[in-house]
Amino acid sequence: LKNIAYQGEAGAYSEAAAIKYFGDDNTLLPQFNFEGIFESVSSGAAGYGVVPIENSLFGSVMENYDLLNRYSLHITGELSLEINHFLMAVRQYRPEELKKIYSHPQALGQCSEFLKSLPGVKIIPSYDTAGSAKMIAETGEEYAAAIAGKNAAGHYGLKIIKSRIQNDLKNYTRFLIVENRENTPQGENCKTSLCFELKSVPGSLFKALGAFAFRDINLTKIESRPIPAKTFQYLFYIDVAGNVNNEKLVNAIANLREISENVKILGCYESGKVFKS
Amino acid sequence: LKNIAYQGEAGAYSEAAAIKYFGDDNTLLPQFNFEGIFESVSSGAAGYGVVPIENSLFGSVMENYDLLNRYSLHITGELSLEINHFLMAVRQYRPEELKKIYSHPQALGQCSEFLKSLPGVKIIPSYDTAGSAKMIAETGEEYAAAIAGKNAAGHYGLKIIKSRIQNDLKNYTRFLIVENRENTPQGENCKTSLCFELKSVPGSLFKALGAFAFRDINLTKIESRPIPAKTFQYLFYIDVAGNVNNEKLVNAIANLREISENVKILGCYESGKVFKS
Repeated sequence: LKNIAYQGEAGAYSEAAAIKYFGDDNTLLPQFNFEGIFESVSSGAAGYGVVPIENSLFGSVMENYDLLNRYSLHITGELSLEINHFLMAVRQYRPEELKKIYSHPQALGQCSEFLKSLPGVKIIPSYDTAGSAKMIAETGEEYAAAIAGKNAAGHYGLKIIKSRIQNDLKNYTRFLIVENRENTPQGENCKTSLCFELKSVPGSLFKALGAFAFRDINLTKIESRPIPAKTFQYLFYIDVAGNVNNEKLVNAIANLREISENVKILGCYESGKVFKS
Repeated sequence: LKNIAYQGEAGAYSEAAAIKYFGDDNTLLPQFNFEGIFESVSSGAAGYGVVPIENSLFGSVMENYDLLNRYSLHITGELSLEINHFLMAVRQYRPEELKKIYSHPQALGQCSEFLKSLPGVKIIPSYDTAGSAKMIAETGEEYAAAIAGKNAAGHYGLKIIKSRIQNDLKNYTRFLIVENRENTPQGENCKTSLCFELKSVPGSLFKALGAFAFRDINLTKIESRPIPAKTFQYLFYIDVAGNVNNEKLVNAIANLREISENVKILGCYESGKVFKS
């Protein structure tokens, strides 16, 4: 039996991701915000955290990149979950009848085209998709709807008034599994995640990527985040294909340390699990 | 007399940026959202748009990167504005007495450490910093505060209850000026902004950056955004130092076109104006 921390209320997409990855026989520990996941895994209250890191329509969850650097946890797994957004309310309204729609800013962004077709409706960002559904169910607010996953409608007894309202039907969120210990797998079907600061010299990002490119190591993701104390300088996050213990990758990381600063290995984990929601 | 579109209410940081850059003798056209800026400059209703693109504490404004690609406007200028956030309310409350704090999610993020010191206060994301101040002033809501710029307090007659509450005292937002025509300056104190898609081959980002690095052209910013129709593939945005008509840069861009797809020049503009707010 595992203790698994995720962000959101019961019925959240992160809850679905936790169940798909670990099975449904565990203790799920919902957290109010993303930092709650990192805190509870750091303290040992949870053995595992499930962290959304990017969505195929809306992009990276920047706060979680910052938290990966700030907490010394290890990425030990990843999965992609197909996301379908549903519009739900206490009654079977037509969408044009609605006065308010509540949801998390990421979900609102993923449904921006549908929302643009309802110019009279007030869009209200809230901290959570399933939390918006819960709130509407609890208050019984009329002419209001939430955007959340199908599970949330079932969980809170709401009516689905429109299905699959996201901008593009192919909508995936990639989640990372974090633990407070390394758990490097055997074999080569892996990703290794790293972060580093560039030295202030011309061509420094090019050289840093060269450590991998010259060894034919594939880069699958790059992200940058501002360094607050260094105005308009950046911390880079990269995912590369391969096992961190593979000789080529060991050499590439040693090379990266020569040409950049504060190199941190965030984890090595099996890649490629995709689940339907 | 210029027509200048910006996002937010009177008293917004973007309004301050417009006044600092263009002077205070113009017609300012506040827009409800960022897309409104791009729409009104495209239609000719505004000659100029002022677009926040990144903050030194919180990072890039991703929506505006997407809009730069979606609309065919040209970046013709940039400025950085020093940002100081103020907590304001209808009365001189102590922060601990507050029940609610309203502001834009970026401003809430920039003040996250201060907000963490007030665990009992409900944090409510709203569409605009100055708009939150306006709303509190209009409703007269008690025990509620807004986070906004000093100008907003003056404009809406609110009391400043705490000054400079952002996480780090050095807090700058960089704004772009957009027009529906090119306006390439003379001289070399310029930046050129581009976006491009990578071909699906190993080392493709490394090669794309090489087009600039091998010619000693400095990269000042890189950002990536998902391509919705191509799950977990990215459109890259780069800023490089130099004039787009300089021979070195002409050659670098021709080289980039050989090794990547859908290369678009977003603009060439003078760099380096920094204003105190």
